[in-house]
Amino acid sequence: MENCVFCKIAKGDIPSFKVYEDERFLAFLDIKPRNPGHTLVIPKEHFRWVWDVPYLGEYFEVVGKVANAIKKAMKTDFVVSFIIGEEIPHAHIHLVPRFRGDGHGALINLTLIQEIEKEKMEEIAKKIKEKLQKT
Amino acid sequence: MENCVFCKIAKGDIPSFKVYEDERFLAFLDIKPRNPGHTLVIPKEHFRWVWDVPYLGEYFEVVGKVANAIKKAMKTDFVVSFIIGEEIPHAHIHLVPRFRGDGHGALINLTLIQEIEKEKMEEIAKKIKEKLQKT
Repeated sequence: MENCVFCKIAKGDIPSFKVYEDERFLAFLDIKPRNPGHTLVIPKEHFRWVWDVPYLGEYFEVVGKVANAIKKAMKTDFVVSFIIGEEIPHAHIHLVPRFRGDGHGALINLTLIQEIEKEKMEEIAKKIKEKLQKT
Repeated sequence: MENCVFCKIAKGDIPSFKVYEDERFLAFLDIKPRNPGHTLVIPKEHFRWVWDVPYLGEYFEVVGKVANAIKKAMKTDFVVSFIIGEEIPHAHIHLVPRFRGDGHGALINLTLIQEIEKEKMEEIAKKIKEKLQKT
């Protein structure tokens, strides 16, 4: 879809810190990370809401693989997920590793955005990608 | 698993406001609803985390069906989802319909629990169930 930022990321017209890609899905680091390792998983095809994706099972097989790779890469057992959909109108799922004392409360404090340098983001993406390749 | 409240709900040892059930999964209203229609979807088998469920694709096919039924039953386009996992150590997914002016902010305010009478809960469960039967 024209003017959709996630469609542009899916096509590679906007660069991203990719952690996973196949024909149908893409996972990349959120540029407003709520914790290091905060990842978005999207279908490349444009859908308004996650619940509109006709291959939801396939989608979540990928989300699950990415979540487990984040666990290993970020050394935590605790990865929360949330689906809102009002921020960007292209289906996407948030995966955020949680750490003791990260200040996020029970679920996630959306306003708590971390400043992470480009080099560090690349390093995190690489670590998650490596764990994915081992599964 | 012994002493697991969701295992007991899955077995029917603890009653619940059921909206969906099949051999592997159960969906029922959260008794601490953050909005009317707040539903939990669980695998009947005990897993610690959603990411541990080996049939995650199948799980989310069910979650998607329930989410779309909630949309129709509660008359909203906007259904958020979240996965925490620290509250109850049995894999579960929250689905919460959102309404304009419901006071939940961007995602969900976990402390904003609605008081809904038993009869009203039964009515809501029935409505969602009916929409599910039509899909």
